[in-house]
Amino acid sequence: MALLSEGLTQILIPVAALIGLAFALLQWFLVSKVKVSYGSGDGNDYKDKLIPGEEEEGIDNFEVTMKCAEIQNAISEGATSFLFTEYRYLSIFMGVFGVIIFLFLGSVKGFSTKSEPCTYNTGNMCKPALANAAFSTIAFLLGALTSVISGFLGMKIATYANARTTLEARKGVGKAFITAFRSGAVMGFLLAANGLLVLYITINLFKLYYGDDWEGLYESITGYGLGGSSMALFGRVGGGIYTKAADVGADLVGKVERNIPEDDPRNPAVIADNVGDNVGDIAGMGSDLFGSYAEASCAALFVASISSFGITHDYVAMSYPLIISSVGLLVCLITTLFATDMFEIKNESEIEPSLKRQLLISTVLMTAGIAVVTFVALPSEFTMFSFGTNKSVKNWYLFFCVSIGLWAGLVIGYTTEYYTSNAYSPVQDVADSCRTGAATNVIFGLALGYKSVIIPVFAIAFAIYVSFSLAAMYGIAVAALGMLSTIATGLAIDAYGPISDNAGGIAEMAGMSHKIRERTDALDAAGNTTAAIGKGFAIGSAALVSLALFGAYVSRAGIEMVNVLTPKVFIGLLVGAMLPYWFSAMTMKSVGSAALKMVEEVRRQFNTIPGLMEGTAKPDYATCVKISTDASLREMIPPGALVMLTPLIAGTFFGVETLAGVLAGSLVSGVQVAISASNTGGAWDNAKKYIEAGNSEHAKSLGPKGSDAHKAAVIGDTVGDPLKDTSGPSLNILIKLMAVESLVFAPFFAAHGGLIFKWL
Amino acid sequence: MALLSEGLTQILIPVAALIGLAFALLQWFLVSKVKVSYGSGDGNDYKDKLIPGEEEEGIDNFEVTMKCAEIQNAISEGATSFLFTEYRYLSIFMGVFGVIIFLFLGSVKGFSTKSEPCTYNTGNMCKPALANAAFSTIAFLLGALTSVISGFLGMKIATYANARTTLEARKGVGKAFITAFRSGAVMGFLLAANGLLVLYITINLFKLYYGDDWEGLYESITGYGLGGSSMALFGRVGGGIYTKAADVGADLVGKVERNIPEDDPRNPAVIADNVGDNVGDIAGMGSDLFGSYAEASCAALFVASISSFGITHDYVAMSYPLIISSVGLLVCLITTLFATDMFEIKNESEIEPSLKRQLLISTVLMTAGIAVVTFVALPSEFTMFSFGTNKSVKNWYLFFCVSIGLWAGLVIGYTTEYYTSNAYSPVQDVADSCRTGAATNVIFGLALGYKSVIIPVFAIAFAIYVSFSLAAMYGIAVAALGMLSTIATGLAIDAYGPISDNAGGIAEMAGMSHKIRERTDALDAAGNTTAAIGKGFAIGSAALVSLALFGAYVSRAGIEMVNVLTPKVFIGLLVGAMLPYWFSAMTMKSVGSAALKMVEEVRRQFNTIPGLMEGTAKPDYATCVKISTDASLREMIPPGALVMLTPLIAGTFFGVETLAGVLAGSLVSGVQVAISASNTGGAWDNAKKYIEAGNSEHAKSLGPKGSDAHKAAVIGDTVGDPLKDTSGPSLNILIKLMAVESLVFAPFFAAHGGLIFKWL
Repeated sequence: MALLSEGLTQILIPVAALIGLAFALLQWFLVSKVKVSYGSGDGNDYKDKLIPGEEEEGIDNFEVTMKCAEIQNAISEGATSFLFTEYRYLSIFMGVFGVIIFLFLGSVKGFSTKSEPCTYNTGNMCKPALANAAFSTIAFLLGALTSVISGFLGMKIATYANARTTLEARKGVGKAFITAFRSGAVMGFLLAANGLLVLYITINLFKLYYGDDWEGLYESITGYGLGGSSMALFGRVGGGIYTKAADVGADLVGKVERNIPEDDPRNPAVIADNVGDNVGDIAGMGSDLFGSYAEASCAALFVASISSFGITHDYVAMSYPLIISSVGLLVCLITTLFATDMFEIKNESEIEPSLKRQLLISTVLMTAGIAVVTFVALPSEFTMFSFGTNKSVKNWYLFFCVSIGLWAGLVIGYTTEYYTSNAYSPVQDVADSCRTGAATNVIFGLALGYKSVIIPVFAIAFAIYVSFSLAAMYGIAVAALGMLSTIATGLAIDAYGPISDNAGGIAEMAGMSHKIRERTDALDAAGNTTAAIGKGFAIGSAALVSLALFGAYVSRAGIEMVNVLTPKVFIGLLVGAMLPYWFSAMTMKSVGSAALKMVEEVRRQFNTIPGLMEGTAKPDYATCVKISTDASLREMIPPGALVMLTPLIAGTFFGVETLAGVLAGSLVSGVQVAISASNTGGAWDNAKKYIEAGNSEHAKSLGPKGSDAHKAAVIGDTVGDPLKDTSGPSLNILIKLMAVESLVFAPFFAAHGGLIFKWL
Repeated sequence: MALLSEGLTQILIPVAALIGLAFALLQWFLVSKVKVSYGSGDGNDYKDKLIPGEEEEGIDNFEVTMKCAEIQNAISEGATSFLFTEYRYLSIFMGVFGVIIFLFLGSVKGFSTKSEPCTYNTGNMCKPALANAAFSTIAFLLGALTSVISGFLGMKIATYANARTTLEARKGVGKAFITAFRSGAVMGFLLAANGLLVLYITINLFKLYYGDDWEGLYESITGYGLGGSSMALFGRVGGGIYTKAADVGADLVGKVERNIPEDDPRNPAVIADNVGDNVGDIAGMGSDLFGSYAEASCAALFVASISSFGITHDYVAMSYPLIISSVGLLVCLITTLFATDMFEIKNESEIEPSLKRQLLISTVLMTAGIAVVTFVALPSEFTMFSFGTNKSVKNWYLFFCVSIGLWAGLVIGYTTEYYTSNAYSPVQDVADSCRTGAATNVIFGLALGYKSVIIPVFAIAFAIYVSFSLAAMYGIAVAALGMLSTIATGLAIDAYGPISDNAGGIAEMAGMSHKIRERTDALDAAGNTTAAIGKGFAIGSAALVSLALFGAYVSRAGIEMVNVLTPKVFIGLLVGAMLPYWFSAMTMKSVGSAALKMVEEVRRQFNTIPGLMEGTAKPDYATCVKISTDASLREMIPPGALVMLTPLIAGTFFGVETLAGVLAGSLVSGVQVAISASNTGGAWDNAKKYIEAGNSEHAKSLGPKGSDAHKAAVIGDTVGDPLKDTSGPSLNILIKLMAVESLVFAPFFAAHGGLIFKWL
């Protein structure tokens, strides 16, 4: 038996989660020490701390500081009001879909309240299907709620931190970096700890009813993942459309036509753009990674419950996925200290290495953590369920499964960095191609995105092969958890990006000096790369999670093989591979159309508001906010419906095998589209920043801002916006969500699905 | 037994092929009646025939006509010299790869010359593996040679027809249309008839050795498909890089920087651009479709040989695929008469409907043809081999299999037309998005491409489901043949495009009047759409062909199922789905880099040759031709190697199951990438033409040439060039070629493959 006792496990998990929460609050407290407005306080507080000789005009100007507070307030209010509106719509969806879950699952055994013989734990009686329907619905609602709270808190922190980062930038790039990074850490720890805690509590509460029926218990818990991911879908798509409609619209008129800088306060779409960063990149991404985490845990728990852990009721071994996450939280805590306390950023070139170091440190420490957990929590040998057969597994196999997921994440992260950071030749080549105009820029950027898929796919394939060979689908589920075990750090460096982006926007809008803007730009450029890395993690983990969920679905639906040589499966595969394209077509077109409306509105304001261009009149920010809000709420429905309805339609009408094909097809195709879209967009953005920064002879020869090459780079950046912030990242959710939805509805499809083939 | 006798079949096939050849020669003769230069003949020949009142300046100018001849000559010489150089390189490849085939296949039974017991026709003796190795190699070389001849002849005809089309445009759009269309028909019939005849003769010659061993005979014949497709790959990639490097380079400097029209003779890259159309779009496409045809036939014949037809030596039923193609030739002959003799084009708006009508007529007639062939050539019931089992099939099942392929082709063709013709809203929306610049144009164009995938994929999926359910893999193979049965018509309307494009170029370069240029532009716009339709057919048939080859491979490798739930297969699927991206990254980057070189050379010439811009000095065309030639020959190697080596590596090191995963993955992913790339490119091209033509109020509001919206449209068009003419169409070949190569090498992989898993 394992070394860890049941009692200790019962303590370890919630304590780790609470430590995570406490750490998040501590970081928040540290960030809050930066005061945003002088208010009634002592106006001389700051001057003392400024770097000597840097008291440029505007730096300690009282009005400028007040303006920061004002802008921050506008962004925060805009984001809050959008999210509330979005959540109001989503609550209707949650209600309706909750009813669907209950009715579909309840109908599996004709709403009977009688206990049933267990499927896997043969000889025992399990709770009625109706109970599973009810508890799945509750888990779904809890998952959705946790996801919404995660996104909302993330947004709150980000909008709290943006102006503080701007103000700290006056004292040097190091201080600003710490502020932005700490705020990212708040979000990372809050989300990871919250997700773990809610899941832990839910399992324990459900157990009060389920008792010894672990099969039913963990079947119901999968609803938690579904709830988390479906909110994430709408969050990503809605937020993505919001932010990119505003961003593209603002850039097209501001930068291209009017030749005013990014984030210029005269641009009517500028507030919408900054709000967008918070509702799209922050809230959407928070929900997304929370969803991945929830689903990976659910997939691992479900597979474990029908393996020897579940059958013999080995509580500690069963909790292995949650223990991994608990240790991950502690590892990330230590990792964070490296960035905030052990090293200090002295100049701009140190930012990116410092963020990259975070990834490496957390990965190394976590590897040790996994080893410990594996040897104390697992018996030395046990069996895992593998599509109808049982596979004998040794505990150290699982060490390799989790670790390979973790390290594959690092490989994906570093590859992404190589292809999207302007420190390396791929982005520099793209920048160079701007010499001959926007067309070659777009061609080179697309080619870069395609190429950037190669290494991540091999890394994922390798992780899948090893972890599957060692521990079947459970191996893949824990590999996904391994990749997500350092989620707190991943989220911290990811959230850091949009916060810095906003900080730059506020500096520009508040009219701060050029030097400050340069610093926030440097933070932002590193942020673009880390955002791309975050997306790389998101898609890599989504691939593993989806595969684990796919395996769980197949097990739950009672399929023992998915043979490509049967037409049912093959057409599913083909159509599934098409879905990412259909989905991307919708989201790209939505952003395009909303951006066109935004452009017209911004042009109208420039043309009709006298004094706007001269800075004497204020633009009408609210109309632009409304355009983004309306567009995103309206346009998120069709892609959302596509994703939510496809498994229901495929399963009900074409049956479990076709649905298995659809899931596999969308997985293998979606991974490619998502990675290439995210990296292409990130590369274009940084190619533009490379030309703007002009830090090398080569970069100078392409610039400065406003040169033909720069204009070409701006076009690439604009094309990349919906690719990297709307379609690309939403595709992770597409593949995960379809898989988890199939898993939840599997009993229904297995019982009543395949209507068309039954009719024929 | 079937109604058709063996003797009649032996006559029908070669006679149909000869009729096709004769018809091609007749069309050639009719085209040749248009004289290109006055030469020493009577200068008044033409004047009589010109439309009264259209004797504008330049029309009957002797110098202009001489110039046409001169330009035609330059294009023809350039294309011939490039193809000869390319073929010289390829002959080395053919030799080396032929040796590889012989050695790999010979080693299956250790180069033994002893007869072996048959695999499927149990109880009988089959020829030794060494003989199969030798005959596969011969078939490979014959296929390669036929492919090369097909491409070369197509190019010869196209360069023969381009100036003739220009000259006929002086007499009205109808005459020009007939000339271009007849020339396309020459190519279509020559290719289809030649492919059928060579295959027929090869089979009959091989039979002299093989006698009753049909298993070995049709195994060896698959080499024919491999030869055809591998030449097609290099033809498409090499030609695609050649043409687009020149096109993009010419446009970027000519249209964007120097503001001179397309095909202006002052542009140094203009000859290379026109040569490119012939070596890329014509020769490459000819080889490609010939390859599809050869592979579909080989897949069908192979599957049939191990089914009841082969085992019972039913010659007529065995020849069913060839009879379908024979009847297809005759149906296309009748269809062509509708365009050339029964209707007359009176104005420009009739061109596209006339070409579309060709598709519909050939499809309707062919459906009747299929019905007849099916009932006279097949016994009323028989069994087909289906992965280890035998499936009972009725002859009318096969009618539905072939027909559904044929009609799915029509659906794909019409969908492609809808998404790429500027007569419909999708392209008009893209054109409209140019209002806000190049970025929105690119976003809308990409979204259009993604969206255009939906219907074709459903059409292919439906065809696969029906034909597989009715007659297993044989059903899919004949569905592919059904789609290709009207290949002569498909090729005719496809080749028509580049011929018209060239005709326009010649008109511009020869300094013909604006009216002539308008007519050739109208021909060209319709040609863009038909080129996209042709690509739609190519990819649709490639999907079916690949699946049929995949089935044949699986049968030959002795695999009875390809289970996605095994890690070997799944990682194959994932990596296979990545290959189209890797491949596209290479080809796009190649075009981009070559175009950059071209731009530099063109700029250099404009800057250093005095009088070039004024038209008093001649540019140095030859250097540009050399840049394109060098780039395409050098850059076609890496993507070619990727495609040729992947099956060998996957099969040898990872074994037959992983390879099966790779094939399925690249198929389902490649289809999407290919369709979206082709349609996006076609749509951008026609959006630009829509603005230029200004035929509606909406179009006028965006134009004229040189407006901001038009400039944005030109950028989209340029980005689309490599997508639609290099990566997109090459991807068909990627998926087909990997499948046919796996099929040919299957015995080797089955015997010696999977080294890595053996070592572990």
